[in-house]
Amino acid sequence: MTSENEREENRQQVPVVAVILAAGEGTRFDPDQPKQLVSVGKRAVIDWAIRAFESNAQVSDVVVVVNSTVRGSVERIVEHEKYTKLRLIVNGGKERADSVLEAINALRSAGIPAQAKLIIHDAVRPFVSQTTITQCVDELDTYHAVVVAEPSADSIMTTRDSGDRKVVNAVLPREGVMRVQTPQAFRFGTIVSAYVAAVADPQFNAEGEVPGGDTGVVSRYLPDEEIGIVAGSDDTMAIVTVHDLAAAEDIAKAEALSTVRSMIGKMGNA
Amino acid sequence: MTSENEREENRQQVPVVAVILAAGEGTRFDPDQPKQLVSVGKRAVIDWAIRAFESNAQVSDVVVVVNSTVRGSVERIVEHEKYTKLRLIVNGGKERADSVLEAINALRSAGIPAQAKLIIHDAVRPFVSQTTITQCVDELDTYHAVVVAEPSADSIMTTRDSGDRKVVNAVLPREGVMRVQTPQAFRFGTIVSAYVAAVADPQFNAEGEVPGGDTGVVSRYLPDEEIGIVAGSDDTMAIVTVHDLAAAEDIAKAEALSTVRSMIGKMGNA
Repeated sequence: MTSENEREENRQQVPVVAVILAAGEGTRFDPDQPKQLVSVGKRAVIDWAIRAFESNAQVSDVVVVVNSTVRGSVERIVEHEKYTKLRLIVNGGKERADSVLEAINALRSAGIPAQAKLIIHDAVRPFVSQTTITQCVDELDTYHAVVVAEPSADSIMTTRDSGDRKVVNAVLPREGVMRVQTPQAFRFGTIVSAYVAAVADPQFNAEGEVPGGDTGVVSRYLPDEEIGIVAGSDDTMAIVTVHDLAAAEDIAKAEALSTVRSMIGKMGNA
Repeated sequence: MTSENEREENRQQVPVVAVILAAGEGTRFDPDQPKQLVSVGKRAVIDWAIRAFESNAQVSDVVVVVNSTVRGSVERIVEHEKYTKLRLIVNGGKERADSVLEAINALRSAGIPAQAKLIIHDAVRPFVSQTTITQCVDELDTYHAVVVAEPSADSIMTTRDSGDRKVVNAVLPREGVMRVQTPQAFRFGTIVSAYVAAVADPQFNAEGEVPGGDTGVVSRYLPDEEIGIVAGSDDTMAIVTVHDLAAAEDIAKAEALSTVRSMIGKMGNA
């Protein structure tokens, strides 16, 4: 945690860069397109995600990480929607961590300062709220690393091997057990340090994916760094199963309704 | 685990009793009725749950645990649908464990044998599949306790206190971490032993809810009992949030469609 003086200093204007990860290959819903391009409430999932960060007053820049399959579609969306904060569309890598590294390298080349705030977000969580984004940015005045997490509705258990079968090892206490989501936010210098340590570790390069994403990387490679927690909401859900798409349509409808209400409110005030 | 001889013996006919827990007070969706009565695909959530066990050829008897608010509605549903396996509607208690204890006591009074198979299920998971139910029953020929569980889509982390805030303690490895769901199935003698030990423990009576439900009770009070695992599916989802209702409607539609298809199939064969 940082001192009050540091906190004051930190509140000075620094770039706030959203990095949206859309390089996944998952085509579970639609054989013709990965899930970040699937349409929900008449808008592609990736479009919802970009729009959320574009709309946030504290966010200064947006970077999207893509693969070659989705690049064209993302470029068309960004042009069509005239998003003004979009700075870079970066080609990602094989694993999530590779994609984050590509974004970090591009931002280093662009010369962004160590104090800059980085908010890394999975495109498949398209309905991240403005409150959640703002809280992540603000909490970086207290911690150098912050993660959005939610209690698990189901109890969590661990398993162990018994012969060729898995059996229950232990049921964890509910208290203090949470599901890791995104956004995950970091001071740029902190996430760079964590990944510098990670890429020097053969195990990191071998295992492909670190559980907990970038928070997992910071937790493992900067064990003394305190990682703050921002409470997630039902709207931070990831679109994973087909049934999640139905839930997403429901959220999209509520979002559209609240936009119409706010427009009517503004018209009333005009 | 039981030996091959025991397994053979166990396959002899024993009562297979489904206990459906519908005594919850949750009115998050509708101030006028708890969520087990909320309608999904034109059928109350509790109705879907009873129907799933009524339809399973291996299940011989169904017991529903209710509270005074829902008893009337459940009685009307059971009568209207002419469910033939429904034996008892038991009044539950304050906590989930109290409700299970009421059901166990009722079954003891009814004289069901220690080898009987008990399948305990939360009514708010209305779409439990026939495959899942059958697997639970069958796995009780190998283990005396079985739980349906699914890997968590999100990584799981633990937290610790830092001053008056919670911070990240550790991100758990993905391997061997699962979400506990229901059904949870037990030989009757095993679940009775676990609860006899539990009610003798002042901590059990004080804490209200054991994480992991009845599996948590067996795991804690019969630590030498191996608990088998049946893989859950997206359809074992619990209805917890409003958006889950939208996902549930989606599943209900698919269920209705598959019923119509199977009816058309039968007509074709007639």
